[in-house]
Amino acid sequence: MNNAPIGIFDSGVGGLTVAREIMRQLPNESIVYFGDMARVPYGSKSKETVISFSEQIVRFLQEKEVKAIVVACNTASAFALPDIVSDVTIPVVGVIEPGAKAADAITKNKKVGVIATEGTVRSGMYAKVIKAINPEIQVFQKACPLFVPLVEEGLLYDSITIEVADRYLHDLLSYGIDTLVLGCTHYPLIRRTIQKVAGENVSLVSPAYETAKELEKIINENNINSSLESAVHRFYVSDSADRFKKLASSILPCDIEEVGHVNIEQYG
Amino acid sequence: MNNAPIGIFDSGVGGLTVAREIMRQLPNESIVYFGDMARVPYGSKSKETVISFSEQIVRFLQEKEVKAIVVACNTASAFALPDIVSDVTIPVVGVIEPGAKAADAITKNKKVGVIATEGTVRSGMYAKVIKAINPEIQVFQKACPLFVPLVEEGLLYDSITIEVADRYLHDLLSYGIDTLVLGCTHYPLIRRTIQKVAGENVSLVSPAYETAKELEKIINENNINSSLESAVHRFYVSDSADRFKKLASSILPCDIEEVGHVNIEQYG
Repeated sequence: MNNAPIGIFDSGVGGLTVAREIMRQLPNESIVYFGDMARVPYGSKSKETVISFSEQIVRFLQEKEVKAIVVACNTASAFALPDIVSDVTIPVVGVIEPGAKAADAITKNKKVGVIATEGTVRSGMYAKVIKAINPEIQVFQKACPLFVPLVEEGLLYDSITIEVADRYLHDLLSYGIDTLVLGCTHYPLIRRTIQKVAGENVSLVSPAYETAKELEKIINENNINSSLESAVHRFYVSDSADRFKKLASSILPCDIEEVGHVNIEQYG
Repeated sequence: MNNAPIGIFDSGVGGLTVAREIMRQLPNESIVYFGDMARVPYGSKSKETVISFSEQIVRFLQEKEVKAIVVACNTASAFALPDIVSDVTIPVVGVIEPGAKAADAITKNKKVGVIATEGTVRSGMYAKVIKAINPEIQVFQKACPLFVPLVEEGLLYDSITIEVADRYLHDLLSYGIDTLVLGCTHYPLIRRTIQKVAGENVSLVSPAYETAKELEKIINENNINSSLESAVHRFYVSDSADRFKKLASSILPCDIEEVGHVNIEQYG
């Protein structure tokens, strides 16, 4: 059991920013990563659909005998975490609570911005979790649906992306936020552009780092640390592997050689 | 049979630009429209996945006893049309052949541009069909993956959309095209922006009009004209109806009151 892999999933490649952090912080832990490339994105879809997709993926990961699950997708964390937790007996970690804790630790003026998908914003989950930690914090949210396609188009630091970011961040900045949560796992890839637009006085929070920390804590508490000398990482997608491999190579520090195909609808 | 509806499908709302044209040209024909909002978009996905999704939808439309099928999605037309045609015994109309015919009829200098999704461009289907009609025509293609999210964000005529269009059309315009095919059913919604960037000397071709003409021809040839005095249109989606209704109201001349939900994966 201890040497079993960690299951990580996302709607696509964005969750690799979380996987990357887990590989860095927990180098002995093996990973089974699933990216739902056939049905990406989740951010514009309904709660019911995101729960249904997430539960199919959890059934696939359980078949791979994972010892814990990381929901490396903000939209799935916002909508499906309670259902996943009640479906399984292994530990489950989402990205929202770690991100909320980090925002609470960093903000000084108690004004926190959250940028995320439409779904994550609609769920109100970041505001709820941040306020549960510290009711004095004011939370301002903004859905940024163009950021994911801009990242996938490779326009990471481009005049178009800067103009879009200017538009999206305008109101949040006018409220005087000093902390901005990157509430979608794609957004760390345009961190430099977002920082430029937000200015140096705004601290950016990427839940990936804190999520890996939280996972480490849970692994220690449950005494399920891996004793492997070299971890083995496996990658699966619901669509063809080509596009995933291409996008993944810009996120992970290493090339992915093999990617398995899964007919995820069969887990319905 | 004659009063049975026409089945129309798309990955989402874009196909409503085709449905709108069919309603206009064939006001007595009833329509069953299916938008695959749970798995939208198709344009970035593999041929195998688009075929699998399309065949599920065709099975659903057959259950609704449609008398003909319109594949109102360029990516599905590019990848899945031969499979759909061999799956069913009723007439099937895609959007690519009508668009190609219109481009051939319009171009004077025999230089035609095609803008479309990554999938449609990768399939090379527009170039193949246009060249089959007239081998002298030179076809220049460009994938424009940001156009669909820009349309869905409502930035139909905006400085950001103009800058993106400038970037995408630059090479096509430098080749001296006089005709530009809008090879994605979302693109007619930003026709004004595209025309502004392309200039007055470039004729824009929207396959929707020609597709409705082609459908009319096939209905006449098969003697399956409807004798209904008032047509009945029904709409179905694979995700919740809210987002579909909102986007649809900006495309159709009337509000959609009822939208059915379909668990499309069950048709696998």
